[in-house]
Amino acid sequence: MPSLSRVLVGFGLFVSASSLVVASSVLDDRAHEHWGIPRNAHFPLHARGTNKDGSMPTYKNPNAAIEDRIADLLPRMTIEEKVAQLIQGDIGGWMNMTDPLDDTLVFNATGLVDSLATKAGSIWAGYLTPWNKLVFAIQTAQDYLMHNTTLGIPALVDSEGLHGFTDNGTTWPSPLGLAASWNTDLLQKAAASISDEAEGLGITHIFAPVLDLSRELRWGRVEENYGEDPFLTGEMGHAYVSGIQSGTRRNVSHTATARMAATCKHFAAFGSPEGGLNIAPVHGGERELRTMYLPPFKRACVDALTIMTAYSSYDGIPAIANSHLQVDILRNEWGYKHYVTADAGSVDMLYDLHFVAPDRATSAKIVVENISGEMGGGTYTFLTLPDSVRNGTVDVKYVDDTVATILRIKFMMGLFENPYPYADYNATLRTSATRALLHQMEREQIVLLENRNGTLPLSKTSPLRLALIGPQADRVSFGDYVFFNASHNGISPLAGLRRLLANDSSVELAYAEGCELWSDDRGGFADAVDAARGADVAVVVVGTWSLDQTLLWTPGTNATTGEHVDLSDLGLVGAQRALVQAVKGTGKPTVVVFVSGKPLAEPWIQENADAVVQQFYPGELGGLALAEVLFGDANPSGKLPVSFPRDVGTTPIFYNYLKAARPLDPGRITDNGTLAFGHQYVLDSPAPLWGFGHGLSYTTFNYTGLTLSKSTIGTNEDFDVTVTVHNTGKVDGKEVVQVYMTDVISSTVTPVQQLVGFAKVDVKAGGSETVRIPVKSEQLAVWTVNNKWAVEPGAFIIKVGNALETFANATLIVA
Amino acid sequence: MPSLSRVLVGFGLFVSASSLVVASSVLDDRAHEHWGIPRNAHFPLHARGTNKDGSMPTYKNPNAAIEDRIADLLPRMTIEEKVAQLIQGDIGGWMNMTDPLDDTLVFNATGLVDSLATKAGSIWAGYLTPWNKLVFAIQTAQDYLMHNTTLGIPALVDSEGLHGFTDNGTTWPSPLGLAASWNTDLLQKAAASISDEAEGLGITHIFAPVLDLSRELRWGRVEENYGEDPFLTGEMGHAYVSGIQSGTRRNVSHTATARMAATCKHFAAFGSPEGGLNIAPVHGGERELRTMYLPPFKRACVDALTIMTAYSSYDGIPAIANSHLQVDILRNEWGYKHYVTADAGSVDMLYDLHFVAPDRATSAKIVVENISGEMGGGTYTFLTLPDSVRNGTVDVKYVDDTVATILRIKFMMGLFENPYPYADYNATLRTSATRALLHQMEREQIVLLENRNGTLPLSKTSPLRLALIGPQADRVSFGDYVFFNASHNGISPLAGLRRLLANDSSVELAYAEGCELWSDDRGGFADAVDAARGADVAVVVVGTWSLDQTLLWTPGTNATTGEHVDLSDLGLVGAQRALVQAVKGTGKPTVVVFVSGKPLAEPWIQENADAVVQQFYPGELGGLALAEVLFGDANPSGKLPVSFPRDVGTTPIFYNYLKAARPLDPGRITDNGTLAFGHQYVLDSPAPLWGFGHGLSYTTFNYTGLTLSKSTIGTNEDFDVTVTVHNTGKVDGKEVVQVYMTDVISSTVTPVQQLVGFAKVDVKAGGSETVRIPVKSEQLAVWTVNNKWAVEPGAFIIKVGNALETFANATLIVA
Repeated sequence: MPSLSRVLVGFGLFVSASSLVVASSVLDDRAHEHWGIPRNAHFPLHARGTNKDGSMPTYKNPNAAIEDRIADLLPRMTIEEKVAQLIQGDIGGWMNMTDPLDDTLVFNATGLVDSLATKAGSIWAGYLTPWNKLVFAIQTAQDYLMHNTTLGIPALVDSEGLHGFTDNGTTWPSPLGLAASWNTDLLQKAAASISDEAEGLGITHIFAPVLDLSRELRWGRVEENYGEDPFLTGEMGHAYVSGIQSGTRRNVSHTATARMAATCKHFAAFGSPEGGLNIAPVHGGERELRTMYLPPFKRACVDALTIMTAYSSYDGIPAIANSHLQVDILRNEWGYKHYVTADAGSVDMLYDLHFVAPDRATSAKIVVENISGEMGGGTYTFLTLPDSVRNGTVDVKYVDDTVATILRIKFMMGLFENPYPYADYNATLRTSATRALLHQMEREQIVLLENRNGTLPLSKTSPLRLALIGPQADRVSFGDYVFFNASHNGISPLAGLRRLLANDSSVELAYAEGCELWSDDRGGFADAVDAARGADVAVVVVGTWSLDQTLLWTPGTNATTGEHVDLSDLGLVGAQRALVQAVKGTGKPTVVVFVSGKPLAEPWIQENADAVVQQFYPGELGGLALAEVLFGDANPSGKLPVSFPRDVGTTPIFYNYLKAARPLDPGRITDNGTLAFGHQYVLDSPAPLWGFGHGLSYTTFNYTGLTLSKSTIGTNEDFDVTVTVHNTGKVDGKEVVQVYMTDVISSTVTPVQQLVGFAKVDVKAGGSETVRIPVKSEQLAVWTVNNKWAVEPGAFIIKVGNALETFANATLIVA
Repeated sequence: MPSLSRVLVGFGLFVSASSLVVASSVLDDRAHEHWGIPRNAHFPLHARGTNKDGSMPTYKNPNAAIEDRIADLLPRMTIEEKVAQLIQGDIGGWMNMTDPLDDTLVFNATGLVDSLATKAGSIWAGYLTPWNKLVFAIQTAQDYLMHNTTLGIPALVDSEGLHGFTDNGTTWPSPLGLAASWNTDLLQKAAASISDEAEGLGITHIFAPVLDLSRELRWGRVEENYGEDPFLTGEMGHAYVSGIQSGTRRNVSHTATARMAATCKHFAAFGSPEGGLNIAPVHGGERELRTMYLPPFKRACVDALTIMTAYSSYDGIPAIANSHLQVDILRNEWGYKHYVTADAGSVDMLYDLHFVAPDRATSAKIVVENISGEMGGGTYTFLTLPDSVRNGTVDVKYVDDTVATILRIKFMMGLFENPYPYADYNATLRTSATRALLHQMEREQIVLLENRNGTLPLSKTSPLRLALIGPQADRVSFGDYVFFNASHNGISPLAGLRRLLANDSSVELAYAEGCELWSDDRGGFADAVDAARGADVAVVVVGTWSLDQTLLWTPGTNATTGEHVDLSDLGLVGAQRALVQAVKGTGKPTVVVFVSGKPLAEPWIQENADAVVQQFYPGELGGLALAEVLFGDANPSGKLPVSFPRDVGTTPIFYNYLKAARPLDPGRITDNGTLAFGHQYVLDSPAPLWGFGHGLSYTTFNYTGLTLSKSTIGTNEDFDVTVTVHNTGKVDGKEVVQVYMTDVISSTVTPVQQLVGFAKVDVKAGGSETVRIPVKSEQLAVWTVNNKWAVEPGAFIIKVGNALETFANATLIVA
């Protein structure tokens, strides 16, 4: 608790942003008096926050070029002020943020001054707290920074935002589910709606998207990614960044180009930790880095205003200490000029986890020399930098270069003109338009994996007894990175069905939990089996679960996915599989719904369920969308962004494996225990249960007329793939046209196939759509033995289909 | 079957080697007549196999320097003769090798001539065949090559020899078991005995040792390696190479320095294939290559006469196409001047598996340009090289450089003087001295993992009813790379016990199989439980199994380990675990013996068995040695060369993981199904069941007086670790003193600990031994961010213990 606090009623809140562009020298004098801050003895104000001749400093001129403003401002800054720009502060420094329900508009002035004196580049504000309190906290800080500090540099204000910003913003499906929609337009709109909600509150910086690849499925954070594929991840990431950033804030200058800073994370190669263990080292070489881990960042992040580095090491170099990655590639090759920040606490890990530095000062030196700032969550090692600069250990040019990057994005967002919350923030929060978008996304992220004998959709119009069973049936399972109790905003499958069926008396709905998610207790099976026996069809909802960002880190809670929650087994936990088997044992058609943050390895269910529906962690309308899909009110159109293995022991399972990676001579253990021996594997198969890109519909599609814009191209030439999709069924549907490429012969080993393009199209029943998908020359490139990109002449197979199926193909010649 | 064959009785067999150094021009004439070979039209004989002045060519002069002989010989060779040196032939080319029992001394002359015209560098002879037939086949070929070809170049004659050469030589434990002995002296003697057996038969080339690391436990070939650690592997490999090669053949010149060519394989980074799938790509970077995969080769193979390349790719480059590995590192950095061969069929894989070459000719070009020859097993792509040289596609210098390497080792073995089998080959085969060595090794490779309440050793001197149970109890389970029916030479645990107890009427032995290895049928449990109930103690022998090189590749057979036999689960297969549980359920003390080619993931057995004995695949005396260990006639002294995981889902489990790799917050599923939730992992632990270096004894040891030769050393300074081991128990025992090093702070991420030295010592009961273990400066080096080795100043922790235990430690300062 703050030791010194006072109530400020109406303290400067909702000051018109335009009134703030005033000579700071005047404000400075007032500020120092008002806040009781001692004047800086060494730097007369006129030498820093003003010009000697009294004219407006260039950096305060909204019409000046951004680079000129940076060049003007940097020399005015003390080393302490510079370093303060590189450290993330926290509104907890002046507000009591321990109680999410507390709404008193009180702040601690000493805390505010002390905190912002050293940690003023960005401010963590990702708390669950009443909106008016959040706005008060932010307004207070920006007001202080703008008016009561020598230079008047506003702060970024940070929130998480993987699938909704983390202060009671609308909760969207987890990123793995968003990716299952394969709908970039929709995702961009979703991201824009997240910005809409956050922007008004004064948040200017969202820690999303995550562009790690879900190739190590044991890892707890699989749900935070857009799947296993670099192309899909890059496209989804690009849509998200565009949605978050596009537009400008209110009352900013014409030089502003973004309204919000997205953060691409975690740079790079974070998603395949050894053993699936969080933060563990990643094994790989330069070629795997270039061809697999970096492309999503290259695609999505060069225009993102911030990038967050990874906790992990790659081939023995911690990401944040990796100058090849952070400087050679990101800064020099890609020309990235924006702000890079280390992840929470990760600077400390250089001396206390990776042990590549002897102490805090060296850790900070390593990170700043790679042109990165520091997040909170550690010991604020960057506070050692002023001394390190003074004693010559760190060249101030690295500090300057890094400070320039954060100043640059503040100028790009117009924060020097207006860093404040908007008085009418409520107008953009939780709007009906956002709700409609969310509803569409919830429907489009559901993947129909199996549908034997047309089990689905169920009919609402003829009498039906439906038994809804399972521990996920009356539960809202969001993924991680949502705020405390976010699930209270969600609708469970049971509630969704009740709402959908409210006016359909022909459907009789019975419900039985069957078992808990987290126990092997089968005491509830009898009720579940009774419910199934009394029904015409049973729907069993099972899966994994995560927790919100408060509970996930609370000792004594349990979860099976989410950050720092790593699995050694990918099957259903506890009694869930046995519950499905018991229900199926009744002989009643059994639909299994997986609500899960990662692929479940359940070969028995794949073989035996009458239908299987995959719902990655949904958003607030997930239960309703699931009900709509079950009853055909929505025709499922999601496709898997990740492959499903038969068992953890058959992983990795990603579809785009290098040639020679998957000898196939499977054995198996039959249900009665008989052993049928093979070699790869002796008693299992390295083939997936369901492959990348798979997803059924209530209609059927047929492909004709695959053509390439040119059958022979040069090594620098782009091309188009055109194909016609026919809806040959009886209902309208959406199809994801997926284009894959195989480089038949390449100088280094390339994947058996790679996604190079896709488009989601609506096709009316009986109708057809012709789709043209552009492919860039660079997507054919290999990373050669000489460590360069090259498109190599020869044949390329162009396929339309999914990882396991070919609907049409053609050969492209590069000459 | 050969189409043209004739019986040659007494055809030139056992010609005295010394009589063969004659002018080959004379023999050449006779030979061409005798064999009906057309004379070479383009190269008059005197220009090639003789000198114009009639003097002896330098290359035939046993007293000339080897490099001079190579320089003299190479220009005399046609391109076809050169390429023939780079291709492995096969005695099947002139002998009927399809029936292992056939012993007719018949060869096909056309086959001989045709085969050796194009494939004469080495000859595959690793068949199971009567020895006199093998000798006949080899003698025939060498006789022909020496006397009836223009240049008279003898061939290498190849056999497998991972743990005994593969024609009814003595079968030793599989390499993983040999490594468990941690006895380099004994291993060197074992390897020498393998050479003893092979040399007399005319074999000059053994395809061993394997220096891959067992870090991906699903891989079928884990048993062929010396474990997970690069240092132990390097030391064992070095001992093996020394044992195989040391000495000289009979009747050779003083320039000969080796009697046999060892082959280090598989170069490099073969042992961690993706998914554990055979031949699959390996993921890793330059640092992992340098610090983990290459050190064993650097240690053991620079003096080995041959190296075999790996099938796999590493970071997208197939090993045989990897000029950085094969040329930059092996040839240029390490100065390796001996012969490198591609593995069987692997040249073809460049165009038909890795797809980095469009055709056979390009594949051959790539491989020869990396200074490597070709083994059989493929399409003999090197036959394209003469045309490629003629048409300018391949520079002949690469062919010459490669041919020089194989000629070099032939000169180094004195084969130009005497390439023949010895008439008295029987004198060195299966001797009593070899048997005694084998017996010692069998004892020393057994690892006592658990021994609760002194369950072991059992007593022979008081009445004891012993129930021997399990599918491995009356079975001889050798690892792969043994000849057809090799197991007939072995003694099973049951037979071993019977032999040991033959004169001990106080022990009553009952036996029940309990179940088959390869089935879930529990029909035999009742007998097993009865046997246990009627006994004082039960010994249950379970495990994995492999097959000999014939059966392993025969369709319809089954196995759970060995080449191309990859597991997705590391637990006991079929009913075995349940059998152990049923036996333990009787309440009788239960000893579990694992006979296995890899670690078994059996946490229930670790927790519940009264004692656990690990016998990696033994050699011919394995059953006897096991009996001796059970009854205390041998005190176990083996230590694990590989860590044991709790489950496949918790792998990799190797002890020398990089810092930050193993967060530990384990959960578990209790025996009654209760779920106790953790995070790493949610329901399991990344900690091993038993760690690297673990192994109990029937006595106890205590360590005192750990000292370093210097407490501060320079960056290029070696040091010694001295420690005194006390046998504090009541029986004599052997202890493996293990020294580990931790680089406290390093510029790149280093392992949490690394084995840097060990010594196996005999310590009498109540006695002590002081051991001095040298550590080389280079063992402290890190592979820096600048891709160089450097010993970095700072503190190093020196520990004596094993991976999970510390018996003594000290700090070393590098200044």
